Amino acid sequence: MSVKGLLIVVSGPSGAGKGTVMKGILERDPNIRLSISATTRRPRETEQDGVHYFFKTREEFLALVDKKGFLEYAQVYDQYYGTPRAFVEEQLDAGRDVLLEIDVQGGMNVKKAFPEAVTVFLAPPSMTELERRIRFADTGTRDNIETRLEWARQEIAQIPRYGYCIVNDDINGSVEALAAIIRAEKLACWRRPELTQNILEGAMDQ
Amino acid sequence: MSVKGLLIVVSGPSGAGKGTVMKGILERDPNIRLSISATTRRPRETEQDGVHYFFKTREEFLALVDKKGFLEYAQVYDQYYGTPRAFVEEQLDAGRDVLLEIDVQGGMNVKKAFPEAVTVFLAPPSMTELERRIRFADTGTRDNIETRLEWARQEIAQIPRYGYCIVNDDINGSVEALAAIIRAEKLACWRRPELTQNILEGAMDQ
Repeated sequence: MSVKGLLIVVSGPSGAGKGTVMKGILERDPNIRLSISATTRRPRETEQDGVHYFFKTREEFLALVDKKGFLEYAQVYDQYYGTPRAFVEEQLDAGRDVLLEIDVQGGMNVKKAFPEAVTVFLAPPSMTELERRIRFADTGTRDNIETRLEWARQEIAQIPRYGYCIVNDDINGSVEALAAIIRAEKLACWRRPELTQNILEGAMDQ
Repeated sequence: MSVKGLLIVVSGPSGAGKGTVMKGILERDPNIRLSISATTRRPRETEQDGVHYFFKTREEFLALVDKKGFLEYAQVYDQYYGTPRAFVEEQLDAGRDVLLEIDVQGGMNVKKAFPEAVTVFLAPPSMTELERRIRFADTGTRDNIETRLEWARQEIAQIPRYGYCIVNDDINGSVEALAAIIRAEKLACWRRPELTQNILEGAMDQ
């Protein structure tokens, strides 16, 4: 295949179900790879280096910034977060799709750096349902919940900046929706400038 | 559902397999309706009024033109062809998707009149394969085949004007590809301007 892979950005508030939907699509489609972000923040108890994040020192992170090693990066309070460029570009060049879970600010930065990226927002059906899910999973304080809901509202307000929005009221349905988006985007004519000539000249590698 | 249906334009040269793929998607998805064109040309032996076309006299056709009764129409040599507007608009308003098989000229006119239409080109894998299919199905003369191939070349050259292109080398695969395009287009944020508010305010009708 000479066709490049797709970069698929997935954003959405905590509690929308991003993790489960992404796990579902990765299991379903062997051509997709997950991009792992780098960060300077300390790992939480359940987080593993190279699985949830690449955990880096500030010096390591900034050295990579200098070497243009990030597709995008951002400072959030006193910590850095970034998308390592090499992995993404290698996979796309090899025709594999890359899935990137990232917040709205990061997603919009990726879109700027990489306009051909597909942007997907995974939304809860309603704020009421989101609150129910957050409370159900919650181990934190009430303040924590209010903060997360306010942050969710601000992210949801950015939906119009995304290409697609999947309202996640059913995991399987959402995985299928994401698969349909990926399939459809690969059929977009603007992504295949060589297609017309290939058909007219008989090359079979469309 | 408050959501309007999609108008899906399907073009492609004779021999690409439009008929079979459209039959497949109509069987698969009960929410899709087929738009039937009107024409002043005489029915061929196998064609039925109201199934393949609405066959009209020139006077009937031009009266409808005067009443803005066509979404688009065109004169090809001395015959008229057009897409009756009322059926399309009624179905879309009722939330049903409408499939419209039409040549490239007509497809581009529909897109002008109706920019939110989804345009899909169904292409053969190659000209060699198209010629094989046309000769296999052929009941005409050699001249006829050359004319059809030249016409096909001219249509294929217009692929970049379409939103999507499906290379039809497998009927089931092409039906699934069309289903994925329809599903993905319905998830596009620009088609759902009310979505963000609905989620934030708790309306369940996204």
